[in-house]
Amino acid sequence: MSNAPVYNRLNKDDAVVLLVDHQTGLISLVQDFSPNEFKNNVLALADCAKFFNLPTILTTSFEKGPNGPLVPELKEMFPDAPYIPRPGQINAWDNADFVQAIKATGRKQLIIAGVVTDVCVAFPTLSALAEGFDVFVVTDASGTFNETVQQAAWARMTAAGAQLMNWFAVACELHRDWRNDIEGLGNLLSQRLPNYRNLMNSYVALTNSH
Amino acid sequence: MSNAPVYNRLNKDDAVVLLVDHQTGLISLVQDFSPNEFKNNVLALADCAKFFNLPTILTTSFEKGPNGPLVPELKEMFPDAPYIPRPGQINAWDNADFVQAIKATGRKQLIIAGVVTDVCVAFPTLSALAEGFDVFVVTDASGTFNETVQQAAWARMTAAGAQLMNWFAVACELHRDWRNDIEGLGNLLSQRLPNYRNLMNSYVALTNSH
Amino acid sequence: MSNAPVYNRLNKDDAVVLLVDHQTGLISLVQDFSPNEFKNNVLALADCAKFFNLPTILTTSFEKGPNGPLVPELKEMFPDAPYIPRPGQINAWDNADFVQAIKATGRKQLIIAGVVTDVCVAFPTLSALAEGFDVFVVTDASGTFNETVQQAAWARMTAAGAQLMNWFAVACELHRDWRNDIEGLGNLLSQRLPNYRNLMNSYVALTNSH
Amino acid sequence: MSNAPVYNRLNKDDAVVLLVDHQTGLISLVQDFSPNEFKNNVLALADCAKFFNLPTILTTSFEKGPNGPLVPELKEMFPDAPYIPRPGQINAWDNADFVQAIKATGRKQLIIAGVVTDVCVAFPTLSALAEGFDVFVVTDASGTFNETVQQAAWARMTAAGAQLMNWFAVACELHRDWRNDIEGLGNLLSQRLPNYRNLMNSYVALTNSH
Amino acid sequence: MSNAPVYNRLNKDDAVVLLVDHQTGLISLVQDFSPNEFKNNVLALADCAKFFNLPTILTTSFEKGPNGPLVPELKEMFPDAPYIPRPGQINAWDNADFVQAIKATGRKQLIIAGVVTDVCVAFPTLSALAEGFDVFVVTDASGTFNETVQQAAWARMTAAGAQLMNWFAVACELHRDWRNDIEGLGNLLSQRLPNYRNLMNSYVALTNSH
Amino acid sequence: MSNAPVYNRLNKDDAVVLLVDHQTGLISLVQDFSPNEFKNNVLALADCAKFFNLPTILTTSFEKGPNGPLVPELKEMFPDAPYIPRPGQINAWDNADFVQAIKATGRKQLIIAGVVTDVCVAFPTLSALAEGFDVFVVTDASGTFNETVQQAAWARMTAAGAQLMNWFAVACELHRDWRNDIEGLGNLLSQRLPNYRNLMNSYVALTNSH
Amino acid sequence: MSNAPVYNRLNKDDAVVLLVDHQTGLISLVQDFSPNEFKNNVLALADCAKFFNLPTILTTSFEKGPNGPLVPELKEMFPDAPYIPRPGQINAWDNADFVQAIKATGRKQLIIAGVVTDVCVAFPTLSALAEGFDVFVVTDASGTFNETVQQAAWARMTAAGAQLMNWFAVACELHRDWRNDIEGLGNLLSQRLPNYRNLMNSYVALTNSH
Amino acid sequence: MSNAPVYNRLNKDDAVVLLVDHQTGLISLVQDFSPNEFKNNVLALADCAKFFNLPTILTTSFEKGPNGPLVPELKEMFPDAPYIPRPGQINAWDNADFVQAIKATGRKQLIIAGVVTDVCVAFPTLSALAEGFDVFVVTDASGTFNETVQQAAWARMTAAGAQLMNWFAVACELHRDWRNDIEGLGNLLSQRLPNYRNLMNSYVALTNSH
Repeated sequence: MSNAPVYNRLNKDDAVVLLVDHQTGLISLVQDFSPNEFKNNVLALADCAKFFNLPTILTTSFEKGPNGPLVPELKEMFPDAPYIPRPGQINAWDNADFVQAIKATGRKQLIIAGVVTDVCVAFPTLSALAEGFDVFVVTDASGTFNETVQQAAWARMTAAGAQLMNWFAVACELHRDWRNDIEGLGNLLSQRLPNYRNLMNSYVALTNSH
Repeated sequence: MSNAPVYNRLNKDDAVVLLVDHQTGLISLVQDFSPNEFKNNVLALADCAKFFNLPTILTTSFEKGPNGPLVPELKEMFPDAPYIPRPGQINAWDNADFVQAIKATGRKQLIIAGVVTDVCVAFPTLSALAEGFDVFVVTDASGTFNETVQQAAWARMTAAGAQLMNWFAVACELHRDWRNDIEGLGNLLSQRLPNYRNLMNSYVALTNSH
Repeated sequence: MSNAPVYNRLNKDDAVVLLVDHQTGLISLVQDFSPNEFKNNVLALADCAKFFNLPTILTTSFEKGPNGPLVPELKEMFPDAPYIPRPGQINAWDNADFVQAIKATGRKQLIIAGVVTDVCVAFPTLSALAEGFDVFVVTDASGTFNETVQQAAWARMTAAGAQLMNWFAVACELHRDWRNDIEGLGNLLSQRLPNYRNLMNSYVALTNSH
Repeated sequence: MSNAPVYNRLNKDDAVVLLVDHQTGLISLVQDFSPNEFKNNVLALADCAKFFNLPTILTTSFEKGPNGPLVPELKEMFPDAPYIPRPGQINAWDNADFVQAIKATGRKQLIIAGVVTDVCVAFPTLSALAEGFDVFVVTDASGTFNETVQQAAWARMTAAGAQLMNWFAVACELHRDWRNDIEGLGNLLSQRLPNYRNLMNSYVALTNSH
Repeated sequence: MSNAPVYNRLNKDDAVVLLVDHQTGLISLVQDFSPNEFKNNVLALADCAKFFNLPTILTTSFEKGPNGPLVPELKEMFPDAPYIPRPGQINAWDNADFVQAIKATGRKQLIIAGVVTDVCVAFPTLSALAEGFDVFVVTDASGTFNETVQQAAWARMTAAGAQLMNWFAVACELHRDWRNDIEGLGNLLSQRLPNYRNLMNSYVALTNSH
Repeated sequence: MSNAPVYNRLNKDDAVVLLVDHQTGLISLVQDFSPNEFKNNVLALADCAKFFNLPTILTTSFEKGPNGPLVPELKEMFPDAPYIPRPGQINAWDNADFVQAIKATGRKQLIIAGVVTDVCVAFPTLSALAEGFDVFVVTDASGTFNETVQQAAWARMTAAGAQLMNWFAVACELHRDWRNDIEGLGNLLSQRLPNYRNLMNSYVALTNSH
Repeated sequence: MSNAPVYNRLNKDDAVVLLVDHQTGLISLVQDFSPNEFKNNVLALADCAKFFNLPTILTTSFEKGPNGPLVPELKEMFPDAPYIPRPGQINAWDNADFVQAIKATGRKQLIIAGVVTDVCVAFPTLSALAEGFDVFVVTDASGTFNETVQQAAWARMTAAGAQLMNWFAVACELHRDWRNDIEGLGNLLSQRLPNYRNLMNSYVALTNSH
Repeated sequence: MSNAPVYNRLNKDDAVVLLVDHQTGLISLVQDFSPNEFKNNVLALADCAKFFNLPTILTTSFEKGPNGPLVPELKEMFPDAPYIPRPGQINAWDNADFVQAIKATGRKQLIIAGVVTDVCVAFPTLSALAEGFDVFVVTDASGTFNETVQQAAWARMTAAGAQLMNWFAVACELHRDWRNDIEGLGNLLSQRLPNYRNLMNSYVALTNSH
């Protein structure tokens, strides 16, 4: 049993969220998710960061140019978060301020998402893994040109030790037990999972009728 | 040229919106759209009804039972709309109150959407066409079990003379000219089309920077 | 309004069900539906025939040979139905007994399904339409080699005036009003639509808990 | 035989090309084609317009705003073409200058493509059909949000009498006979059909080697 | 009933098969079928032509150039068939020899397949329909660039009155009754439908074991 | 050869089945399988558990609320199985009763399935692997939101050492040799694999006819 | 460089081909390939075995029953090959004769294909790997119920060290250099790759014309 | 942290590009990408090689025969590159000149693409890895018969340690920082990513208007 793998489980006291280049221009390049799915997934991940009070770090690439500004929703949700507009580095890890902001949190679990998956997510993921961080890629809040590119990028990151997740699993792994805040998690899921919201509304309606 | 087809164009003074059975239980049957896409499309159509001040009629099937209540968002958006909880008729057109509500508007263009497409949309569509109404099916705000069923239902309705549309085309055909309300339509599209919102945000950011 | 299309609506007093060549060998040719989906759809249509007491006619092609026998479930469900093992005619309508069995019912609405769609369904459909019958093709209880063939067959039948339906729409159009037999239709749907069954079970559980 | 359909064949002396709203912003909404496929198809249609010397009319919607300017390639290819930046009309046919430009050509066959299919293509198509024009929709040079919307828009236009084509068929139907200009058509196809270019290059290489 | 559609049924005494441009180079453009599926379908249609002794007419476009020669299998199967290498006409119907060959058969039902669907099949189909012929397009023995082009071409031909079929339905509609030649049809299907071959081999093995 | 991998083969004396959160509400979230496929797969896995007399453990999450009760079929099949309604733990492994129930069996091979794959299956899988258990994930009896989430979850579990299987492979690996119970396994497959049932019925029919 | 992976390359003097359960009944279960693709791939692999004179071992499961006999083509191609009809073992490696036949060849590279992938291929693959053999799974000559099952089975085998290949790569890796037999390999590819055959026929036609 | 994976990052001073068998005939076999996508991706990779001044090595297989010549664009872009027409070796690594050309560069990072992925890319990749090179497979500039073959080839290469990339990620990883040449990289992306070009053109238009 000594060879059993360690379950490196997300821990809300050791995790930090990195949102990389979710910019209005760059998002128009994303075609492996429909626009509505992608928007919902990104905001759901942001909701998780807020709900679990995770330190969150925002970074952008050349937002004065064609890449466009960070999507306003993210800016509004994290007004006090470290915000690193990179002057040119493609790999955010090559930006000292970005790495410094991460290290300043003292946390070792990086939850990362961004646009595009194969570059803005994959490069810092590989860099961070090489420095010994644990990296959890939120696949459904990260978008790219098409599914072929997506799959190749996933394979490269997996081979280097990154863990592939989705925002819902991130939320659940951080929350651990519904009793920690039933209403809070319920609200979050209700906002971002229409079919879960439907279940809740059916339940409420029926309960109220009795 | 005497055989040229008539372009029966949506007219905000002659159109009425019918929302049929968008109930919390029934929506769990929909699998020809992802839950987020479908929710967004239904609410976008509702936005159109509000924006163009179209008379809107709501109906449900057995909402005290497993089918569940009307989704709360729709109820809130149309607090004063005719609301016909059908006691059993599957085809809403078999319900005299429903038909009466439509006829009371004096309008001839029916914009219809519902769950499921092959029944709750198709049946009243075929009935209305037979009574001489023009029917515009909002395909992306109507959902059903899978794409095979969707395609068969579309074919049946098309053969009977229904026009297949999507919510965005409904909005544009009703609006006719951006100058009728640039900001109003812009806001509607921005809420429901993430990539259009991105275009607008890029534009605003760049304009502000000059 | 004189040009309005007639809504030729399924009527349980004027409809007859034709099940063509659902044989154990032939079904292995079907690849436009997964085997489980197809089996469920065929049996659901059979359930409808029983539930609405529709006259039902079975026919097979060469069942002593590689095509194999009629699937036993259908044989058991309709022990007294006219059963026409065709000695060679590919188009069931070329078999006088088959046509005679239909005409003996005095009904004009033919609900047809079979294997394979492009031959065993399409041929009698086209023949029946030419003789003035109304034909309702149950697309999801009819299977064939692949989706390309399916789509071509649908187009051919649609162009000739057949109406494309699915078993659920057939059930609902025949039933008309839940109040005609709430429990009966509910049971039928519960057996054949797992997500509807789930809705019912959630409802029952919650109701019982109060 | 008197009921035989007329083959209304594209004729380079009677056809005019309408390019509607191929703008840098709007194209980011297109997801029913990959970006490369779509760009290639649009430019291929433009190549046809040039090659056959067809009168070509350009129009845009609000190009100073988020919709962005006409893609520069089209502007460069047709420097002298009528160019109608619409001040607000969504349906280009509602713009008198646009219709006037078409009528000024004296031509009756409209070859149309644009972004998005369900609005910028469908609306003028339906208007033009209603005025007795023949409309040929270039489906692969017209893009929209997703395939469901695409299919509904195709169905609506087909039902009204539009003919669905693709740029390659447009080129071939206009050209009629290779001998009219073998090298010219060959060059056009070679630029836009990589596999045809490969055939030509294999042929040339082998011929030269003998 | 006087409005009932006529079932214009394939008749082996009134049908002629047209194979248009199945050339080694052009086939490399086909991507709406896998190469093996397409080869099998084309040869299956050729098998039908032979089996039913249908007059068959071959034509090619520029076979000395990059388009390449007719696939040798077809040439070998129909050594005495009219063979019209067109000197330049893209629409085979524009070639007097081709039309003459058809008319010389005195037949009115044209079974057509070719490469590419949207041009080499669609153009002569539309021309023939306009001259009062009945045209049956063998969709699965006709190939083109992708499924979007395929669907547009099908829609155009359907709208003009062509009937969409597949080779298997052609075989069955011509054969009418297995008893006309059980072994002959069985052999044809066994060669071209692997799953039918499997059924036959299972049957034979089991029968022999008793 | 010392580096050869060990084939850790399912053994009916060392395996235990864990069914996690197959609840009527939660199942409405599953969209990576059609409802019929999923229901059939889950019941097929349950059939295996029964057939091989494997200890089986059931657990649910908040079944009094919107998640709904365990699907009744499972409850009926395993009336005496340990049944752990978790008071809040999302990861079933965090519930001491659940882990205790597993350890009480003394078995080391965990066959797990549940809803949703990325949470209710993945979390206990990772926990169990970390404690040295062998985990076999029944992929087709586990469902989630969409295929992207499914693929990410599979990758995460595979990287940690879980083995991905399907119910049919589970059945066959446990059974080892048909002779252990030919009729028993045959019946199980016949119930859950329609095409296998067809093979058996063809065989029986033909055998009986001799 | 001491950690560089070994390229364990197929060697025609060390490879043996295992064809497992390609039986007429079982093949009807395969739906992850179209029937034509699958038949072609299996025969192509058999062609390779013949062409490279590889020892080939055939085995079947219960061929007197519903599973049906080995497809006759394989039997004819390998009349003298070891042929092991297993009396009941599902994993062919559990049959001593099968393993003995492999070991008798003295070869260490096993090229395996069969029906169904997740059982008849995966089980002996895992067993053989555990005994130190090198296993090359011919993925496109192995079929199963659907793509989800296929992907899970691939993942399980890959994790255990099997190499995933396709028949074309097997042929090329064994052949190493075209000069070993240009005509021989060319013929094999021409029979099984229609587009390669087309290239060859275009080439021959053009060469002959000079 | 000593076990952290090394991020072996592409370095423009240590990378060499290998383009294997992008020949006019062989490319007609590619069906896992559309022809336009594939052409664009291959040329984009070539653009990267030029832009970063990477040594580039070209090789072909039998270009005098049906495989056809190297696509002319590549030949023109790299007139002075080592060009190795292999006399017969299928695995380019078996050709001493090819390996010598690589070793002469003194570089250790191989960026490879070719046709077909499972042979012309996979074989030299596996050979090079075995000799200690780092291999980066450009998945979207490498094509093969279909997606099943593609996925099996990717799995085999990944298991041996190759890194899967796409041309855009290659460009970005080599460039590292936009400031190294903003205009240069911008131009490259603008040529090969239509949606990025659109972003740039929207930006320029808006900037100019102020």
